Amino acid sequence: MVNPLLVMDEAIQLALMGKGYNYTNPIVGAVVVKNGKVIGRGYHTGFGMPHAEIEALKDCEESPEGGDLYVTLEPCSTTGKTPPCTDAIIKSGIKRVFIGVVDPNPNHSGKAIKILNDAGIEVFLGFNEHVCAEIIEDFTKFILKRQPYFTLKAASSIDGMIATSTGDSKWISGESSRIYVHYLRSVSDGIIVGINTVKNDDPLLNVRNFNREKEPLKIILDSKLSISPESKVVKDFGKYLIIATTVRDDSKMDNLKRYGVRVLICKEKNGFVDLMDLSDKLVSLNLLNIFVEGGGKVFASFIKEGLVDRFYHFISPKVIGGDGVPLFGDLNCEKIEDAYKCKLTDTKRFEEDILHIYKFNDYTNHVLQLTEKFRNRCKYGCSQG
Amino acid sequence: MVNPLLVMDEAIQLALMGKGYNYTNPIVGAVVVKNGKVIGRGYHTGFGMPHAEIEALKDCEESPEGGDLYVTLEPCSTTGKTPPCTDAIIKSGIKRVFIGVVDPNPNHSGKAIKILNDAGIEVFLGFNEHVCAEIIEDFTKFILKRQPYFTLKAASSIDGMIATSTGDSKWISGESSRIYVHYLRSVSDGIIVGINTVKNDDPLLNVRNFNREKEPLKIILDSKLSISPESKVVKDFGKYLIIATTVRDDSKMDNLKRYGVRVLICKEKNGFVDLMDLSDKLVSLNLLNIFVEGGGKVFASFIKEGLVDRFYHFISPKVIGGDGVPLFGDLNCEKIEDAYKCKLTDTKRFEEDILHIYKFNDYTNHVLQLTEKFRNRCKYGCSQG
Repeated sequence: MVNPLLVMDEAIQLALMGKGYNYTNPIVGAVVVKNGKVIGRGYHTGFGMPHAEIEALKDCEESPEGGDLYVTLEPCSTTGKTPPCTDAIIKSGIKRVFIGVVDPNPNHSGKAIKILNDAGIEVFLGFNEHVCAEIIEDFTKFILKRQPYFTLKAASSIDGMIATSTGDSKWISGESSRIYVHYLRSVSDGIIVGINTVKNDDPLLNVRNFNREKEPLKIILDSKLSISPESKVVKDFGKYLIIATTVRDDSKMDNLKRYGVRVLICKEKNGFVDLMDLSDKLVSLNLLNIFVEGGGKVFASFIKEGLVDRFYHFISPKVIGGDGVPLFGDLNCEKIEDAYKCKLTDTKRFEEDILHIYKFNDYTNHVLQLTEKFRNRCKYGCSQG
Repeated sequence: MVNPLLVMDEAIQLALMGKGYNYTNPIVGAVVVKNGKVIGRGYHTGFGMPHAEIEALKDCEESPEGGDLYVTLEPCSTTGKTPPCTDAIIKSGIKRVFIGVVDPNPNHSGKAIKILNDAGIEVFLGFNEHVCAEIIEDFTKFILKRQPYFTLKAASSIDGMIATSTGDSKWISGESSRIYVHYLRSVSDGIIVGINTVKNDDPLLNVRNFNREKEPLKIILDSKLSISPESKVVKDFGKYLIIATTVRDDSKMDNLKRYGVRVLICKEKNGFVDLMDLSDKLVSLNLLNIFVEGGGKVFASFIKEGLVDRFYHFISPKVIGGDGVPLFGDLNCEKIEDAYKCKLTDTKRFEEDILHIYKFNDYTNHVLQLTEKFRNRCKYGCSQG
C-alpha cells in the first residue's frame, strides 16, 4: 500500500514543474497508482495544453483500470480549450480519486466530485490540502479579484538598507541567494522594476542559471517615458519588454517599437503610473505572476495600493547604517498601528543569508473553506484501500 | 547508565541560573551522578560565592564517593575568594570528572585536569563543548580583551525602522518579545541607553515580569550632562543609575547625587562619550554583561568602535517605510564591502515576531581550541562507564 500523503507530495512536485507556463490556469499535478505502485505521472505543462490528469493517464505504463488517481486540484468538468477531464477519468476505469483541494473557480467547484461520485468512483478530498491550496494562491486571487498575484523581492542588510549612501548595492546578498532569485524570476510571468533601477543599474532582468523556454516579460514603470533606447534591457530583450507609462510620445514610442518593445499607456495617479490600471492591463495580457524587484519607491506605491501579496526578503548579515538607501520609500505612517501588517510564513537559509517570506494577503483560506464544504473523505471509508 | 550529554545539558541549565550574578566570574553548573542516578546539583550562585562543584557535592543526597562529577567548565585549582575546587573533588572520592570546556583563564587552563589526573581521577573533556563555550563567551572576552561583552537589542519593522516619522514606537514588537527583553535585562549587569531615549521615552529601564534580587545598573550616555532630575529613571532608580558624561558640572552632579546617581566623567571623542574609555570604566566596576538598548546613534557609535559582540534583533511583521527612524545611525559606508559584517547564529519565534541573534565577534573558538589541546576523552576509554 502506498502512503497517500507521499503520493500527493509527488503530485505537488509535478504541479510545480508547470509553474511559469500556466498564465491564468492553475498549476496541477497528477499521479496514477495501481497495486501499490506509481504507474503514471503528469502535470499541466502550460496554458492551453492537456490537463495534468490526462497527462498522467496517458503516461501509464499499464492500464489504469481499477487504479487510484491523485490530483492536486479538483478535475475540470467542462469543455474549455480541452475536453472535460471527468470524462477521461470515468472512461479510464479509475476506481478512486484523491483530490488535494476543490477548484475555486465557481464554474467548477464541487462539480467534478459529484460527476465522479455519480459514475461510481470514490472521491477523497483534502490530502496535503494546505500545500495544494498554497500552490494555486495566484490563481485563487485571480478568481476572487481579477488581479495578478504580486510578489515583492529585495535583498537588504540586517538594518533594512538596499544600498549604501553612494548607491552601491553589488552585492548585498550571497551568490546562492542571487541564484534563487533567478529561479523565482523563471517562474514569473512578468518582472516589474522602476525606471530609476534601469537608469542606475542598467540591468538585463533576464533569467540566468536556469534553462527555461520562457523568458518572463520585463515591465518598466516609466511614467515620463524617459527610458534610453540604449539601455541593455531595450537592446537585448526588447521583444520581452513592456514600458508602462502615462505619456504618449509617438516618436519615442516608434523608436522603442523598433526593438520590439511594447508601450502600455496607463492612467496617471499622483504623477506616476496608476498601479490599479496597470494591474487590469496585466490581467488582460494573461500575466498573473508578477515579481516586483524595486526600487523602494515602487515598493511603497504597491504597498499603498494594497497590491502586495507576498514579500521575499533576503537578509544579509551586515550593517550599512541609517545613511543607506532604505527598502521602502516613504509611507507616511504616523503611528505604529498605521504600519502595513503582514505575516512571516517561511524562512530559508542561503549560505550566510536568510530569506524571510512574508504574506500580506492569504487566499488559501478561501480554497480550504470550499474544500471543507465538499469534504467527503470518509463517505466510503478509507480503510478499504 | 545515564547519557553524559543529557547530564551536561542539565549542568548547563544550572549554570544559566547564575547568569546576572557572576560579574567577572564565569557561570558554571555541576551535577553529581552515582549508580546511574543524579544525586547532587549545584551552580555558581554569584561572585564570591562557592563554586558550582562545591554546591553540587554539598547537595548530594548520599556520599559522592565513587561517583561522577559533571561540570561545564574546568574546575579551579587555586585559592581565590574560595579554596581550590580540585581539593574538594579529590577529597570527595569522585572517580570520574566530565568537563565541558577548559578554563580560558591562563592561571587555570589545564591545571585542574592535571591535578585530578595525578590524583587518579579520570577526566573526560568536551561534552556539549560548543554550548559550554557559548555560555561563558562574556568571560572569555574579558580574559582576552579586558572589555565588557556588549549585546545590542532592538525591535524593528521588517524594513528596519524602530519608530515612525513622528517618533511613535509603542509597540513595534509583540508582548512575548517584550517579556523576553525583560529576561535579557535581568541577566545583564548594566543597560545602556542614549540620553535621547531618556528624553523621548522617559523609560524606567527596570526589570519587569521577573523577580530578581538584582536590579541591573542603568547607564545613560549623556555627554553634555543634560538629563533632567525629573526623569523617572532618576527619581525611581537613582541608586541603580550611572550617568556617563564628558563634562564636570558640580551643581548638577550634586543634584543627581541626592538621588543616589553616580556620575562617570569619561574622555570625550567627537563630542560624545569615548566608548573605549567607558568600556574600561565598566570593567573596573566589574560590569561585564552590558545590554545596549539604543537608540540608533548609540548603536552606530558602538559599531564604529568595534565594540558590538552580539545583536538581538526582534523583527515584527509590519512595514513602516523609509520615512521612519532607522535601526542604526549613519555609518558612512561607501561600498557594500565597507558594511559591518556579522553572522546569524540563532533565530527564535515570539508570537508573530522573529528574533535574529547576530554575532559580530566569536570568542568561543578560543575556548574550543584550548579544549582541543587538553582533550583526553579516550585516555582511559569511555566504555568503562
